[in-house]
Amino acid sequence: MDMMFIQKLKFDRKGLIPVIIQDINKGKVLMLAYMNKEALKRTIKLGKTCFWSRSRKKYWVKGEESGNYQIVKEIYFDCDGDTILIKVKQLGKGACHEGYRSCFFRKMIKSGNYKIIEKKVFDPKKVYKRNTE
Amino acid sequence: MDMMFIQKLKFDRKGLIPVIIQDINKGKVLMLAYMNKEALKRTIKLGKTCFWSRSRKKYWVKGEESGNYQIVKEIYFDCDGDTILIKVKQLGKGACHEGYRSCFFRKMIKSGNYKIIEKKVFDPKKVYKRNTE
Repeated sequence: MDMMFIQKLKFDRKGLIPVIIQDINKGKVLMLAYMNKEALKRTIKLGKTCFWSRSRKKYWVKGEESGNYQIVKEIYFDCDGDTILIKVKQLGKGACHEGYRSCFFRKMIKSGNYKIIEKKVFDPKKVYKRNTE
Repeated sequence: MDMMFIQKLKFDRKGLIPVIIQDINKGKVLMLAYMNKEALKRTIKLGKTCFWSRSRKKYWVKGEESGNYQIVKEIYFDCDGDTILIKVKQLGKGACHEGYRSCFFRKMIKSGNYKIIEKKVFDPKKVYKRNTE
């Protein structure tokens, strides 16, 4: 039987729910990815985030390739039950497969253009063999 | 012509993109909602968040009913261009239509159950006439 927590969640027609990942220490939003029910159960059991990759159609433990695992600290869900928020301890230097701390490294500027506002903290070519995480 | 910022974004098959709303002061994640391209343009023009309601199929300026507007401070997008993060100044006492500061007021506890970890900061019945925001 599902845990009561999971029963409250509404997965979409593809069986997915968006999951916001936030750094528990600094409050930085690191990324957004998707889980199905099984990925959520694996996340809870493993204590590390596990997502469903929509493009590769497979389970994906964040950090399995890079070592940049996300240790689950707190799990929340929203009023509508259709979004999850997980606060994590981010291992390694960053969450983003492009080598930044956060995936949200591009910021809109007044002209309507954008700029990169974070420094690269690691070299993705050295960290990812397939650069797919 | 679209701003360069918008050209980088990937809207899904329904023309939508998920938008994480974060309090710029305390870093609290307040909610997640969806924008289409027009809602994003309205958000930028207005300086207040405007979403597309998937259930009501209409544009929806957050705060139009409650007064709890979200003043846009910073807009980011992620490495894949399929998620937006907006940092806001949250007006009023809270973002959640159930009367909490954040929509993520329920937290998983060890038993697999959950508990409400925020205090209600306003009475939704008094703030929302239709309770639909």
